[in-house]
Amino acid sequence: MACDSFMCIGNRQGSEKPEKEEMNPEKDYKNISLTQFLEILDQKRFFWLIKRLSGNDTGITGGHQSGIYVPRQFMEAVVPSVVTTEEYNPTREISCYIPSQDCLKTGIQAKYYNNKYFPEKELKKKYDEFRLTRWVGTPLQDVENTGSICILAGACRNGETELLGWVSNSAEEEDLIEYWLGKDVEPGQMYLSSAQTERKELPILKQLPVAWLKAFPSGRDIFNFIEERFPQSSWTRSIDELLLKRRDVEFDIFSEVEKHDVIPNIKDGFSSVDEFIKYANSVANRRKSRAGTSLELHLESIFRYEQLKFEAQVVTEQNKKPDFIFPSGKDYHNPAFPSTKLHMLASKTCCKDRWRQVISEADRIEKKHLFTLQQGVSSNQLAEMYQHGIVLVVPQPIITTFPDEYRTKIMNLTGFVDFIKTSQNAG
Amino acid sequence: MACDSFMCIGNRQGSEKPEKEEMNPEKDYKNISLTQFLEILDQKRFFWLIKRLSGNDTGITGGHQSGIYVPRQFMEAVVPSVVTTEEYNPTREISCYIPSQDCLKTGIQAKYYNNKYFPEKELKKKYDEFRLTRWVGTPLQDVENTGSICILAGACRNGETELLGWVSNSAEEEDLIEYWLGKDVEPGQMYLSSAQTERKELPILKQLPVAWLKAFPSGRDIFNFIEERFPQSSWTRSIDELLLKRRDVEFDIFSEVEKHDVIPNIKDGFSSVDEFIKYANSVANRRKSRAGTSLELHLESIFRYEQLKFEAQVVTEQNKKPDFIFPSGKDYHNPAFPSTKLHMLASKTCCKDRWRQVISEADRIEKKHLFTLQQGVSSNQLAEMYQHGIVLVVPQPIITTFPDEYRTKIMNLTGFVDFIKTSQNAG
Repeated sequence: MACDSFMCIGNRQGSEKPEKEEMNPEKDYKNISLTQFLEILDQKRFFWLIKRLSGNDTGITGGHQSGIYVPRQFMEAVVPSVVTTEEYNPTREISCYIPSQDCLKTGIQAKYYNNKYFPEKELKKKYDEFRLTRWVGTPLQDVENTGSICILAGACRNGETELLGWVSNSAEEEDLIEYWLGKDVEPGQMYLSSAQTERKELPILKQLPVAWLKAFPSGRDIFNFIEERFPQSSWTRSIDELLLKRRDVEFDIFSEVEKHDVIPNIKDGFSSVDEFIKYANSVANRRKSRAGTSLELHLESIFRYEQLKFEAQVVTEQNKKPDFIFPSGKDYHNPAFPSTKLHMLASKTCCKDRWRQVISEADRIEKKHLFTLQQGVSSNQLAEMYQHGIVLVVPQPIITTFPDEYRTKIMNLTGFVDFIKTSQNAG
Repeated sequence: MACDSFMCIGNRQGSEKPEKEEMNPEKDYKNISLTQFLEILDQKRFFWLIKRLSGNDTGITGGHQSGIYVPRQFMEAVVPSVVTTEEYNPTREISCYIPSQDCLKTGIQAKYYNNKYFPEKELKKKYDEFRLTRWVGTPLQDVENTGSICILAGACRNGETELLGWVSNSAEEEDLIEYWLGKDVEPGQMYLSSAQTERKELPILKQLPVAWLKAFPSGRDIFNFIEERFPQSSWTRSIDELLLKRRDVEFDIFSEVEKHDVIPNIKDGFSSVDEFIKYANSVANRRKSRAGTSLELHLESIFRYEQLKFEAQVVTEQNKKPDFIFPSGKDYHNPAFPSTKLHMLASKTCCKDRWRQVISEADRIEKKHLFTLQQGVSSNQLAEMYQHGIVLVVPQPIITTFPDEYRTKIMNLTGFVDFIKTSQNAG
C-alpha cells in the first residue's frame, strides 16, 4: 500500500485521462448539470467559444441561414482537417450533442469559405472565414433563444471531432456561466478559451490619470475621463453610435487599469488555493459591480447633454427604482402632475430573462421604455413585452437583428431623446 | 499633463484611499447592491466572517439570546479594545449598518467572556470567547432568516469601529456570495477573510491513492475511498453521526487533492489577468460541481448498506427527478403499485429558498421527505412545508436548532431508514 499512496510521489505525471475507445456523447453527457458541463470543459481541455445568440444566429431575421461564425483557432482545434487551402470551400460533417436540451444533432457542416485563396474563381467577395451551419431543429436555431448564452466546446483527438453545446435556459444559468468565465457575456462579443487578450495599443491607454495607480478609480471616475476624451459636443455621428463607441473605450480602459492593479499581486504566484481563489473572485466581482452601473452612466451623460429633465434611481412604489424617471421623482409623486407627461427608462444590457421586472417599476407610467444592447428578441417575446406596455429602445446599429415586423415599433436612442424632448417642451 | 499620466510611473505607491473625516455608514452604503457591498469589503480590506444563521442565532430556539459567536481574530480587527484580560468580561458598544435591509443598529455589545483569566472568581464554567449581542430588531435576529447567509465585516481605524452586515434575501444573493467566496457556505461552518487554512495532519490524508495525482478523482472515487475507511459495518454510533463524520472527512480529502492538483499551477504566478481569473473559476466550479452531488452519494451508501430498495434520479413527471424514489422507478410508473408504498427523499444542504421545488417532484407521493443539513427553519416556514406535504429529515445532532413544537414532527436519518424498512417489509 505504502508506495501506492499519495505522499510518496515527488513528480507529477501527465494529468490526462487515457482516451476512451469510442465516444458516445449522448450517453456520456446526458442529464449533466451546467456545473458538471463546465467541469468537463476544463477537465478535457476543450476549446470553447461563448457568445449570446443574436437574431442573425437564431434566424429571426429571415431565411438566409448562414450559420454560426467561428474563429480560425476554434476550427483548428475542433475540425482541423477543414482548415486547408488545398481545397475550395472545404466542408466536413460533424455532430454536436447539446445536453442542456438533450439534443443530438448530426449533419452539421463545418465550412471554410476560402475563395480568397482562389483568385482564379474571379469572385467579387473574397471570403476567408469559418462557419458551422445546419443547426435547424436545435436550440441554436430557436428564435426563442435569441439573447441566450451559447457555449460551443470541442476537441479533435485521433482525427475524431467531439463537439458539445449548451444554450442557457434561465437567468441563473447565465449567472453561473458568467461567474465561471469571470466576466459578463456582452451581446455581440465572443469569448474564447484561448484567452489571448490582444494588446490594444490605443493612445488613450497611455494617458490615464496617474492617481488611478494609487487608488482604483470608481466607475464614475472612469466614465468622466471617457466623457472628456469623447465629448458629445464634438461628436459628429449619432448618439446611438456615441454610446457604443464610449462603451468600447470603457472596456479597454477598465482592462488596462485592472491589469496595472492586479498583475503585481499575481505575478509571484500563490501558496494557498483559498487565497488564490478568493483574490480572483474579488477581481471578478469588481468587474461585475462595474458592469452593473456602466450603462446608466452612459445614458445619464447623454441625457444631461441633451438637457432632458430626469432623475435616476427614484423610488416609485414599494422599493421599485426604475433607472430613469422623466422629469423627476417629485413630479412622479405629485398626483396633480399629469401621468401622460411622466416617462421612465430601464436599462438592461440583456433583457431576455429580466424584462418582466420592468413591468412593475412605475405604476403611474403606462408605456415603459426599456433600453437594451441585446441583439434581437423573438416576435413572441416582443409581442408579450408590448402587451405589457414595454417599448424597446436599442442603438440604431443593432436594429437589424430584430424581426422585420417590429422594427418600426422599436425606438433608437436618438428617437427616444426626441420623444422625451417633445414631451417636456410641449405645454 | 504628461507626467501626471499612467505610464510614466515606475513604482506603485500605497493603494489605500485617504481616510475620511467621519464615517456615516448609513449615508455611504444606503441602497448599494450586493456586488457593490462585496467590492467594498475587498477595497477597504475589511475583516469579515460569513456563516449561515442558525436557529440559535436568530432566536428560534428560545429566550436566551446569547448573540453571535465571533472568533478572536475578528474582534482583534474590528473591536481591538475589547480584547483584553485587564478587565473582567469587558464590553464595548458599537453600531452596525446592514444595507441589505437598510437597517442601522446601535447599542450592539461586543463582549469578551474572559473569566478563564479570573480564577479568583471561582466560576464553574471557564469562558474565553467573544460575542456580539443585542441584535433585536435586526435581520440577524429575525427567525425567518434562519438558514440565510450572513456577512459581518468591519475594521477599526484610528480607534473607531466600522461594522457592516448583510443578510441574504434570495437564492440569487446566496449564489453570488458563494461565487465571491469561492466555495459553498455550509451550515454550521464559519468562513473568515484571513483564510488561514489550518493544516490538518490527519493520517488519512497521507494514504490517498497515488492515481489521484495523475487524474483528478471523481466525486464517487473520493466517496468510495471514504466508505472503505469508515465502513458502516464497524461504525458504533448512529448513521446520523456517520453521515456527518464522512462529510467532514470528504471536505478534508477534497481540499488535499485539490491542493496537489492546483498548487503546481499557481505557484509560479500569472502574467494575464484573464488567465488568472479563468483558472481560479475552473477550480471554484469544480468545487461547486462536487458539492452538488456529495450529499446524494452519502445517503445512497447508507441506504444500500441498510438494504433499502431505492432508485436515484428517477424521472417521475415531466422532467422532475427526485433524488431518491423508494422502492423503484418501475413501481412508481406502475399504476397497480399502491401509492401508499411509494416514498421519496430529496436532499438539499440548505432548504430555505429551495424547498418549494420538492413539492412537485412526485405527484403520486403524498408525503415528500426532504433531507437537509440546514440548522433550523422558522415555525412559519415549517408550517408551510408541512401544509405542502413535506416532512423534514435532519441529522439528529442538529435537531435542537429547530423550534420545540416541531421537533417531534421532524425525523432523524435513523428514523427515516426505519420508516422505509417498515414500509418495504410490510405485506
